[in-house]
Amino acid sequence: MLWICAVPRSEPPTRRWRRLSGSADKYSSVAAVHRSRLVGILIDTPAARVDEAVEFWLAALGAQPYPAPGEEQFTALIGATPGLFTVVQAVDDAPRYHLDIETDDLQAEVARLIALGAELVTRWKDAFTLRAPGGHLLCVVPVHSDPETFTSSARTWS
Amino acid sequence: MLWICAVPRSEPPTRRWRRLSGSADKYSSVAAVHRSRLVGILIDTPAARVDEAVEFWLAALGAQPYPAPGEEQFTALIGATPGLFTVVQAVDDAPRYHLDIETDDLQAEVARLIALGAELVTRWKDAFTLRAPGGHLLCVVPVHSDPETFTSSARTWS
Repeated sequence: MLWICAVPRSEPPTRRWRRLSGSADKYSSVAAVHRSRLVGILIDTPAARVDEAVEFWLAALGAQPYPAPGEEQFTALIGATPGLFTVVQAVDDAPRYHLDIETDDLQAEVARLIALGAELVTRWKDAFTLRAPGGHLLCVVPVHSDPETFTSSARTWS
Repeated sequence: MLWICAVPRSEPPTRRWRRLSGSADKYSSVAAVHRSRLVGILIDTPAARVDEAVEFWLAALGAQPYPAPGEEQFTALIGATPGLFTVVQAVDDAPRYHLDIETDDLQAEVARLIALGAELVTRWKDAFTLRAPGGHLLCVVPVHSDPETFTSSARTWS
């Protein structure tokens, strides 16, 4: 089981994201560019140890817990890192961190990162897991930030 | 070789940090409280693959490289993450990420995290490597942020 992607989503994607995330053929007028940003640090933890991990990281970083509704494997550490989601995730694997990149065009961002040398590992729901040159896992996920944060800090790619 | 800690330092620690980082006995008037914050995401990469990793992460995140003077194993990705250092580090080990916590009192912060359940792994220069409950590596390092960033976003512990 490779559940490593997708920071918990506090609200549904905006209409703007839904439109921009369409295929290039369907939305050729807006698909020439897309945007992305580093959005999350995931603390992937063996399920048997996730409670102690959550307790530790909440206290270590002075954060508050936010269990994601309907996605019980995620506990966000609210207030841990301004501008980034920091999340403990229960996994059926060894302890690791991974990073999430959010984007308003999943297919374009995945294609961009693959062109830069990343390899596609798997897809889970609307998140893509890649392995970067050098060996690190990262995920490409839909926009999770509020629109102001995303607009002000995302990079634009053409 | 376990070189995993210490984000590259762009400037020497401030006088305020030097004073606060002293022992509790010596600075009893200010050592009753200390501060810390999550400061860095380290992308620890096998040395043989570090060039391709740096190239990838710079392009993926739209960052500029900053090779740390005198600490050639570190390449900071400037502009990758507002408020955090994001750094590729060459290591003699498997690929992994780790997190850095900066503090104005190393000993107090290490003691706090150990009291929360972390285990001390090693010390390298003025950085301490810990293993968190759940199995993740993190490092405790001196303040690397500018004073305004540290003051505005660090947590205070007593």
